[in-house]
Amino acid sequence: MSSNNYRVDLREFHFVLFEQLRLGELLGKPPFEAWGSDEVRMVLEETARFAREVLGPLQAVGDRVGCRLEGGQVYTPPGFKEAWAALSQAGWKLLAVSEEMGGQGAPRVLAAAVEELLSGSNTAFNMYAGLTTGAAEVIAQFGTPEQKERYARRMFRGQWTGTMCLTEPHAGSDVGAATTSARRMPDGTYRIKGTKIFISAGDHDLTENIVHLVLARVEGAPPGTRGLSLFIVPKWRVAPDGTRAERNDVEVASIEHKMGLHGSATAVLVFGERDDCVAELVGTEENQGIRQMFLMMNYARIGVGIQGLSIASTAYLNALAYARERRQGPSIRNWKDPTAPKVAIVEHPNVRRLLLDMKTRVDGIRTLIFKLAMHYDRAALLRGRDEQAAAYHLGQVELLTPIVKAYASDQAWRVCEWAIQVYGGAGYLRDHPVEQYARDAKVFSIYEGTNAIQALDLVGRKLGQAGGRHTQELFADIQRFVAAHRSHPRLGPAVGMLSAAHEALGGAAMQFLGWFGAGQMERIPLFAESFLESMSEVVVGWLLLEGAVVALDALAREPGREREFYEGKVCSALHFAHSVLSRTPSRIAALTAGDTSPLDIPEAGFGAT
Amino acid sequence: MSSNNYRVDLREFHFVLFEQLRLGELLGKPPFEAWGSDEVRMVLEETARFAREVLGPLQAVGDRVGCRLEGGQVYTPPGFKEAWAALSQAGWKLLAVSEEMGGQGAPRVLAAAVEELLSGSNTAFNMYAGLTTGAAEVIAQFGTPEQKERYARRMFRGQWTGTMCLTEPHAGSDVGAATTSARRMPDGTYRIKGTKIFISAGDHDLTENIVHLVLARVEGAPPGTRGLSLFIVPKWRVAPDGTRAERNDVEVASIEHKMGLHGSATAVLVFGERDDCVAELVGTEENQGIRQMFLMMNYARIGVGIQGLSIASTAYLNALAYARERRQGPSIRNWKDPTAPKVAIVEHPNVRRLLLDMKTRVDGIRTLIFKLAMHYDRAALLRGRDEQAAAYHLGQVELLTPIVKAYASDQAWRVCEWAIQVYGGAGYLRDHPVEQYARDAKVFSIYEGTNAIQALDLVGRKLGQAGGRHTQELFADIQRFVAAHRSHPRLGPAVGMLSAAHEALGGAAMQFLGWFGAGQMERIPLFAESFLESMSEVVVGWLLLEGAVVALDALAREPGREREFYEGKVCSALHFAHSVLSRTPSRIAALTAGDTSPLDIPEAGFGAT
Repeated sequence: MSSNNYRVDLREFHFVLFEQLRLGELLGKPPFEAWGSDEVRMVLEETARFAREVLGPLQAVGDRVGCRLEGGQVYTPPGFKEAWAALSQAGWKLLAVSEEMGGQGAPRVLAAAVEELLSGSNTAFNMYAGLTTGAAEVIAQFGTPEQKERYARRMFRGQWTGTMCLTEPHAGSDVGAATTSARRMPDGTYRIKGTKIFISAGDHDLTENIVHLVLARVEGAPPGTRGLSLFIVPKWRVAPDGTRAERNDVEVASIEHKMGLHGSATAVLVFGERDDCVAELVGTEENQGIRQMFLMMNYARIGVGIQGLSIASTAYLNALAYARERRQGPSIRNWKDPTAPKVAIVEHPNVRRLLLDMKTRVDGIRTLIFKLAMHYDRAALLRGRDEQAAAYHLGQVELLTPIVKAYASDQAWRVCEWAIQVYGGAGYLRDHPVEQYARDAKVFSIYEGTNAIQALDLVGRKLGQAGGRHTQELFADIQRFVAAHRSHPRLGPAVGMLSAAHEALGGAAMQFLGWFGAGQMERIPLFAESFLESMSEVVVGWLLLEGAVVALDALAREPGREREFYEGKVCSALHFAHSVLSRTPSRIAALTAGDTSPLDIPEAGFGAT
Repeated sequence: MSSNNYRVDLREFHFVLFEQLRLGELLGKPPFEAWGSDEVRMVLEETARFAREVLGPLQAVGDRVGCRLEGGQVYTPPGFKEAWAALSQAGWKLLAVSEEMGGQGAPRVLAAAVEELLSGSNTAFNMYAGLTTGAAEVIAQFGTPEQKERYARRMFRGQWTGTMCLTEPHAGSDVGAATTSARRMPDGTYRIKGTKIFISAGDHDLTENIVHLVLARVEGAPPGTRGLSLFIVPKWRVAPDGTRAERNDVEVASIEHKMGLHGSATAVLVFGERDDCVAELVGTEENQGIRQMFLMMNYARIGVGIQGLSIASTAYLNALAYARERRQGPSIRNWKDPTAPKVAIVEHPNVRRLLLDMKTRVDGIRTLIFKLAMHYDRAALLRGRDEQAAAYHLGQVELLTPIVKAYASDQAWRVCEWAIQVYGGAGYLRDHPVEQYARDAKVFSIYEGTNAIQALDLVGRKLGQAGGRHTQELFADIQRFVAAHRSHPRLGPAVGMLSAAHEALGGAAMQFLGWFGAGQMERIPLFAESFLESMSEVVVGWLLLEGAVVALDALAREPGREREFYEGKVCSALHFAHSVLSRTPSRIAALTAGDTSPLDIPEAGFGAT
């Protein structure tokens, strides 16, 4: 149960960071003066070691033992508390935090890479840390100077943790329907009353305090999301000197019994049952809650994408290790000879296809997520020097965030499914890690905004943001790549598939404009997910092919050096183009054909329940 | 935990059985003289009641409590023993058993429908019964008259259960590599020695005896599958008068801890550790084991298809019930108005699309499975009167079996995934049944021959069986439907999509012939699954469209009667054509393009583990 199943191949990280995304161009320059490529490699290696040695062995323990609620207090699985102390000690959560807040000011892409290692080795455990950083960022950005000192600083260094309290029982994804109330007191504080559900890391025994960020409506505020404000609600009130004072009026009503992520406590929190839940407004202005929460939400959405990537990657590498080790059946060339020698199943063509299906998703999604993070970093580099270029990079972050969240989470589930299939019957057993990966991963497509919400965000907001400029710039980037490599001797046909899918995608975007214009609003949510999936395939296909170009260039420079690794990159891109990109236009054609059967069917026609 | 979540809509059963497949043509005629449509309906209603009231409430119990192994004996979850007694008492497992064996001689399609109800309400529980019937069929077909009396008869009526012992630790899917041995004794019995794994229902406390069917190699027999014989190994030896005698030398080494199906004991069985495992050869001839086992295997493969269908159906209906009940968010028409009334989520277009995605799979796969079962029944009706027509029907059974097994199991997993998505966060919780459905369903794509094996069976054996006649006959059936309805005023465009997919499929079949001919054997397993999925879509699309024709005919005859139900059938077919069939040709194009990246990639190129 304490065996360590976390697997990672850092060579892949180095390829994406240094060869494809050219992180080197940023290192050593402000604001990353302190960071060179040696530092980056060292952090990756040390974090990978920590992930393998400290977090990995607690992954199955977290699943089998789970969290328990006793006397209103949640207790985490054995070993989590010590791992938390070690993680805070190591300081990797401070990597990309500003130096002003006690951080190390590293590029965000390094923080994303480190996050993959921490999350992949123990998703449930890393939930406590991930949400804390997100909540601390909100306070650091929108809080008063006192709040930054009192809360954010302690949270960044892991002394306290944080949560995000949005969802209410009756409202679900309809955040604007929240009824949790805030009453303004003469001393400037507020009293919160209401119930929040699905609160990840909502309670635990890892730290001495927990800082809840709670969306609530100040009495008299407008309805919908515009009337929501964001509040700091510490589990234990904080004395003026920063020490822990008496308990606040927030109670854990229950924790959920889930399909997976048993090591992460998902709590129902009741605020103000005794009318004594003391809260501070984040910053000084009411009704800014949604805007403030969205900073954390966007952070969390990228975090979910990283969760998906990280589980997919270790699921893939575990399946690969199993396929290399497990000998079964003769080679297909000797299929009629019962005395032929048995071979490792990695030699069977259908197993190779499954493995390459997985590798393409893992490689492509890692490149996408690292690229998104580097858009932040390039913007930081350009800020004050070239605002227009910086705006381009920040626009890409906006546009790519829903794609990262939805595509990485959907594909993680798919990759886990394939990994189980490679293991065969063994994959269905708890003896191997992949069934837990699947159970843990299922929620990624649901929380932090279901993937249906992501698709609406993409189609309804991001496509047309800044007058459509972010989209046009992305499309132009892809178009430039296509133009440059369409006649590539080896990759040309695959680039042609990218081009066809890309063109079809442009047509689909116009189709949505048409539906908006004609007021055919039902079509938008009907086809938004199909659009998101298609756009994800185009973007990932482009990045994989770009990686193949980089790989072939490296081979051309030094033939023979790491030939197998670089050929792997090329085969990954070709396989994605042939098996996925070649089919993207047919999904888009179905979208633009606009079949409305799901709207037309009479409700009773779905059947009797 | 004892709440009953099983849902079924018998109206759908009646439509497929009586309206689309015209079961009425068979009823009342030999060998089904005793069966009229009233009897069929009554059996369905009573079984559905039993499934809801007796088995359904034990579904979650089986998952939470599971089986335990104590002192070499497996104990099933609370309630299973009583349910077994009630099931045997009710006699539904005897429905399609021959009257000679004490059965009721009902059409197989009724047995398939009943199986859906029993399996859907409690998959784990029904494993014990399903395997018993399969093992009893083997003995009834191939056993000596004494074996039929002693074993099969008791098994059919539920007094003893049966198992199928194929898999060995080192061999997995490579059945011919089995090393379990059988030594011939002077008295005509054998002594078995070896270990078998993944034995479903391998031990339990439901009945007083268990009859294992064990594949083993008689000393001196040839290697590979041709040298395997099938043996009867009772857990308790049987005295000449049929009563239980002393314990046989077969021990439960362990039971597996699985992702799901916790109520079904999956055992590692050790035969002959004390060299005293007494066995009887099935029948009188050695080296017939594979042929004999294949009867059970084919039975079991159709059974897995029914398991997939049954879980998909109840998952769908539970998601539908939730979507009708759960109110969240305003209608898309009022999306900008925070004060607009909340609607049930079944009104949201993306939820409707997910629900219709599920309904198409459930409707289509039920029709496919019932059709396969009715091919048996039509063959039974024709036997002795028109052997050529009977051969057509039995040929379709052969051809469709791998499709039923693989497509139903793959789609069950997909439907469970969508069901969880409809529930949102609630779907990830044990409070609702869908997460268990997903965990239970995952193994369907693996056991009784992985879906990769099913695809090889289809492409390597079934396509070319009887000189390709079964395939040609199926294709001709579809072609006739296309010709008859291509100009249908409402369904015509969808029939055109079926036609295009069907034509492409024919091309792909030729492509495999070409690869076989050219000795390009690696391509076969590389693309077999893609072919199977494409062929499944064509067959299911055809049956859904046929159902739509039947539904529209019914509406034309009596406008207004059950309009919503029949419109549901039409929308289901249209949606499948637009969202699935329209994309089938692109998958086939990728297949025939024959990208070999998964073969070309150097093994090291997959990455470092």
